[in-house]
Amino acid sequence: MRILGIDPGSRLTGYGLIEGRGNRLRHVDNGVIVTSSRQPLADRLKIIHDGVAELVERFAPDVLAIENIFLARNAQSALKLGHARASAMLAAINAGLPVCEYSALQVKSAVVGYGKAEKIQVQQMVRTLLNLPEIAQEDAADALAVAICHFHSAPLQNRLALAGNRKVKK
Amino acid sequence: MRILGIDPGSRLTGYGLIEGRGNRLRHVDNGVIVTSSRQPLADRLKIIHDGVAELVERFAPDVLAIENIFLARNAQSALKLGHARASAMLAAINAGLPVCEYSALQVKSAVVGYGKAEKIQVQQMVRTLLNLPEIAQEDAADALAVAICHFHSAPLQNRLALAGNRKVKK
Repeated sequence: MRILGIDPGSRLTGYGLIEGRGNRLRHVDNGVIVTSSRQPLADRLKIIHDGVAELVERFAPDVLAIENIFLARNAQSALKLGHARASAMLAAINAGLPVCEYSALQVKSAVVGYGKAEKIQVQQMVRTLLNLPEIAQEDAADALAVAICHFHSAPLQNRLALAGNRKVKK
Repeated sequence: MRILGIDPGSRLTGYGLIEGRGNRLRHVDNGVIVTSSRQPLADRLKIIHDGVAELVERFAPDVLAIENIFLARNAQSALKLGHARASAMLAAINAGLPVCEYSALQVKSAVVGYGKAEKIQVQQMVRTLLNLPEIAQEDAADALAVAICHFHSAPLQNRLALAGNRKVKK
């Protein structure tokens, strides 16, 4: 299973690609999609959308994993984040990819094993799990974290879906 | 010139199509794109995106006009609005359409002639200007208002662009 994790932002959108086989995880790629606040909003949305679309085409992931935001600094930054998030998600949706959302608590629990872990602990753990000497961009590390969260959550979700199906069939 | 006005919302996205020839305005269509809060976010973004994409294909507008949001009730509603806004804008952007943003002040000034006009005054003026007995949905009326705003602003923008070009050529 190939997972594309996305950490959206109006200036920097981090991405991280991992591949999971059985219990083993492998790093594929990571980086950031950059926009400038001097560009018109329409151009920035297109850069994020097309950037994610290109990753989807190039790496053919099975799913896009993205953090679900419940807290934002203020309404203006929440609006910007919403723009970036939707642009990234639509690139996946338009390519027929499923999109899975995870809370910060779920990501931290899955990566560090503790829902209130510090950001730096999460990033160190991502490097350890993927056997990477360093990850250049913080946003790319966060994107890898949400991808790892999906990798750990997917088997549970599959079991729940199967259990749900069995219930329906009764 | 055919203008598609959009008033995005996470539940209801209003749209309004008008056609301007010289100083004359004609109503083409209006309505709302509906999503439900019970649907997953990815499905809702797709409904808004595909709904706007369908309007673009069906009516072939020259431009998409949308209100620029500076105030939102809170961060959570701003995030939802950002999702809906980006989804609508991307449908236009992906079809190669220019996107023009206007503030609430600009919309009210263009439609009513007074930047602090009440919402109801704007809606009444939209009906009068387009010679419509009624507009079923409030969000559709707001979408028509931003389309009318673009119609009135476009000649000025064109003149400014021409003036800018002349300056550059000096």
